[in-house]
Amino acid sequence: MRDDAIAVGPGKIDLLEAVRDHGSISAAARSMNMSYRRAWLLMDELNQSLKSPATMSEHGGNTGGRSVLTPVGEEIIRLYRGIEADALVACADQIAALRKLVKA
Amino acid sequence: MRDDAIAVGPGKIDLLEAVRDHGSISAAARSMNMSYRRAWLLMDELNQSLKSPATMSEHGGNTGGRSVLTPVGEEIIRLYRGIEADALVACADQIAALRKLVKA
Repeated sequence: MRDDAIAVGPGKIDLLEAVRDHGSISAAARSMNMSYRRAWLLMDELNQSLKSPATMSEHGGNTGGRSVLTPVGEEIIRLYRGIEADALVACADQIAALRKLVKA
Repeated sequence: MRDDAIAVGPGKIDLLEAVRDHGSISAAARSMNMSYRRAWLLMDELNQSLKSPATMSEHGGNTGGRSVLTPVGEEIIRLYRGIEADALVACADQIAALRKLVKA
C-alpha cells in the first residue's frame, strides 16, 4: 500500500453496508459468504484505522450481538460511494479504453 | 469482485511497472519484496485476463529470462495511472473529507 493510501477499500465498504442492512456482523458475514472471524477482523481493522469507530455493538439484553453504524460509519459509506460514482464519470473514456483491452 | 469490475488493480500495475523498469519478473519481484512465484502468478492472471498479453518473455540466448512489455502493457499502465490521477482531481473534496475521518 502506498504511504498516502487510505485503509478503506471496496471489501470493507461492502461489509459495512451489509452490517448496516443486516444489523449484526454475523448476519453481514453470512450475507457475503464470509466467515464471522474474517468479517470481525475486517471491521476491527476499519474501526482501529479511524479516529472514531464506524460501528457500535450492543451487549446483553434482548438485542445482544447487534451492531449498528455510527454517524461516522454512515458518512464513510456516503463519501466512498460518492468518490466511486464521481470517479466513474470523470474517467469514463479511459475506463472504456481499458475495458476494451480486457476479455469479456 | 463485482461483475463489472476490471481484473486490474494497483498491485498488478505496480508489478507491471516493476517488470518494465527491471526487465524481468524475477528482478521485479525482488524489487517489491514479493516471491517469484507470486509475481509470476499475478502476471499470468493479468495476461490471461487480457485479449492480448501485457508482457513477453525472451527464452534462451544471452538475454534468457528477460521480460518486456508489449504495447498493450504500456497502454494499460498509461490508462490506469491516468484514471488514478483524474479520479484524484475529480474527487479531491470527498477524498479530503474521508481522510479527516482516518487516523494520521
